[in-house]
Amino acid sequence: MHRVNYSETDQMGFVYHANYLIWMDMARTEHLRERGMSYRDMEQQGTYLTVTDVHVRYRQPARYDDMIRVRCWVRDLASRRVIFGYAIERAETNELLATGETSLIALNPQQTLSRIPEHVCELLEPTADPVRL
Amino acid sequence: MHRVNYSETDQMGFVYHANYLIWMDMARTEHLRERGMSYRDMEQQGTYLTVTDVHVRYRQPARYDDMIRVRCWVRDLASRRVIFGYAIERAETNELLATGETSLIALNPQQTLSRIPEHVCELLEPTADPVRL
Amino acid sequence: MHRVNYSETDQMGFVYHANYLIWMDMARTEHLRERGMSYRDMEQQGTYLTVTDVHVRYRQPARYDDMIRVRCWVRDLASRRVIFGYAIERAETNELLATGETSLIALNPQQTLSRIPEHVCELLEPTADPVRL
Amino acid sequence: MHRVNYSETDQMGFVYHANYLIWMDMARTEHLRERGMSYRDMEQQGTYLTVTDVHVRYRQPARYDDMIRVRCWVRDLASRRVIFGYAIERAETNELLATGETSLIALNPQQTLSRIPEHVCELLEPTADPVRL
Repeated sequence: MHRVNYSETDQMGFVYHANYLIWMDMARTEHLRERGMSYRDMEQQGTYLTVTDVHVRYRQPARYDDMIRVRCWVRDLASRRVIFGYAIERAETNELLATGETSLIALNPQQTLSRIPEHVCELLEPTADPVRL
Repeated sequence: MHRVNYSETDQMGFVYHANYLIWMDMARTEHLRERGMSYRDMEQQGTYLTVTDVHVRYRQPARYDDMIRVRCWVRDLASRRVIFGYAIERAETNELLATGETSLIALNPQQTLSRIPEHVCELLEPTADPVRL
Repeated sequence: MHRVNYSETDQMGFVYHANYLIWMDMARTEHLRERGMSYRDMEQQGTYLTVTDVHVRYRQPARYDDMIRVRCWVRDLASRRVIFGYAIERAETNELLATGETSLIALNPQQTLSRIPEHVCELLEPTADPVRL
Repeated sequence: MHRVNYSETDQMGFVYHANYLIWMDMARTEHLRERGMSYRDMEQQGTYLTVTDVHVRYRQPARYDDMIRVRCWVRDLASRRVIFGYAIERAETNELLATGETSLIALNPQQTLSRIPEHVCELLEPTADPVRL
């Protein structure tokens, strides 16, 4: 859950659209943590996940002081790439504000492409998408 | 042309991916200005363009102090929606760092969907995509 | 409480310093809410608070995934200006990361200087500073 | 010179105040470059400058699409600390929008306090403040 702060608004009175990518990142981190893996630790152990593709579809604007819930799940997993799906909702009303998808690849500390470690893959097994999307 | 500043970097040493959406927005504004239309004036005359879809494909990371060039063109135009395409390049090397696409719709001051004004449409006529993409 | 996200880091591996101003803003909003006033409602009723002075002293860097606690209090109140004080701490360790101060003035919907409304002043009565600062 | 982009605005129609710190950082980098030193190279040679104190006084709001000029100078220099001063102006009108000051210390790659290298100090000799401030 994230409370929209003033820095995230723009002069249209909406949340500026680039901020949704940050919320998706935050949700991804929490998703990993719930599965028992801290992304901070993952980096310290030498695996970096970096975004290669982003798609967002904006449906309704988020506004200042809204409480935002982002649901996040693994859509697809391969040895070197993982795809996350997202649903961004206004918590008070359960309105769907946006849907998104990001692909990430794994890098090693030398910043070259590498396999996602086995124990990370196990935690990233794709889940059934939430019903309502 | 945009010089990557320190706030845009992340601890991986790359430009954080959400910043590319800001660069695409900046390029769109300059594209409109070159065609003879200030987006600031457009809002003051009651037409707001808001993003409904974003897609970005990241190919090579941008880094601190890089000079970034964003090429921007109109890919498709309808009465209520315009699609822009983007190529984000490292200026020194002409390397292609990312490609992107955004769809925008027009809103009136009451923030409801409206037609893109005629004189704006004329300026937004789609152009041939740059050759190299 | 705020969890440091990846977008807030920079290539030094620290939280980029401008983000502390956003955290101070978030804390100010929550401080008002605890006193029974939503800043969103305050704007809708025609009073805007805008920052005229910021001072931050950075002592220890915040880092990715840290849990951040910001303590916030009213330091001084006049008819047209309120000064907030802040202590930014790493929640796990109670380390003091930064201290700050912001002055704000009230604007009306025409964006001219105005008095802070009486009922807002009552909620903003200065509090004793937390002991440890 | 910096053109205010949409992401920098907030729902008050002003530039959100934290962005001025980014502009001051950009100006500092350009100041160093003009004196013959790239901050990127400086980091690669093992010296990092990190902000320990920020003060900004906001006088007039910057707005969307404004061209911003930031004047930057060295106010004071010691063996381990440098203080920069800033004047942020609207370029079209020469209006002074804000003034600021930042203190920075030098860190080595182990992120501990170190002296500012001799050749950097030479380039950072304080200059007379611009007349108009």
